[in-house]
Amino acid sequence: MFTDEYFMKMALQEAEFALEKEEVPIGCVIVSNNQVIARAHNLTEALNDVTAHAEMQAITSAANFLGGKYLKNCTLYVTLEPCVMCSGALSWSQISKVVIGARDEQRGFINKQLSLHPKTEIITGVMEHECSSMIKTFFKSKR
Amino acid sequence: MFTDEYFMKMALQEAEFALEKEEVPIGCVIVSNNQVIARAHNLTEALNDVTAHAEMQAITSAANFLGGKYLKNCTLYVTLEPCVMCSGALSWSQISKVVIGARDEQRGFINKQLSLHPKTEIITGVMEHECSSMIKTFFKSKR
Repeated sequence: MFTDEYFMKMALQEAEFALEKEEVPIGCVIVSNNQVIARAHNLTEALNDVTAHAEMQAITSAANFLGGKYLKNCTLYVTLEPCVMCSGALSWSQISKVVIGARDEQRGFINKQLSLHPKTEIITGVMEHECSSMIKTFFKSKR
Repeated sequence: MFTDEYFMKMALQEAEFALEKEEVPIGCVIVSNNQVIARAHNLTEALNDVTAHAEMQAITSAANFLGGKYLKNCTLYVTLEPCVMCSGALSWSQISKVVIGARDEQRGFINKQLSLHPKTEIITGVMEHECSSMIKTFFKSKR
């Protein structure tokens, strides 16, 4: 039951919430022992704040839940590959695993040759089609 | 009067506030038209939050002051070279100028071959000695 797809669907639901607010539709959840301890979606427009990416909010929220700043034994599920800022935050958090839906060739951290914490496992391509089509549809509608 | 040293001294004062709280002593200010519109210091321990770097807080605070998320015509003065996370946030903010005290060869963005926004001017080495000795003294005292 608790597959990567199960939690990525929740991240996609968060992205839907962003879409409803006309935000760039990116969502994520952080899971510890199969329990969702944080969920967030992009709020840069609503909050007028470039730092309000889904991942940044979820990292703060998960640390608050855990009562400690390191996200050991935690997995982030995110619909789009994290940017430089979010990859830096994930690296500081020492999170155990990051599961990515769609790749972001231009702004994602992977093509910038950045790495996360040495202990962090990275998986890409989970529900890639659904994750990527949500973003693509959004940007097409904006043109 | 409004020299780079003038504002870097304020950033150093912020770093002092961090030091008093036993945080890694890094401080910054954001200036627009010679007016300080945000000042912050590292609070990762107090807030239990890896994202609570001085620069992240100042970016959010400056955008709040300006009522818009882009920090055009703004200058950040920061005692230590920004990390990957903070450089990503600065890049999204399209800030006009970043003035750095001490370099951070290991964790700073420059040696990671990252760049800020194409419009952002970067100056390093302002009050380098004072900025670097504050950090070095802190880490020596921790060993």
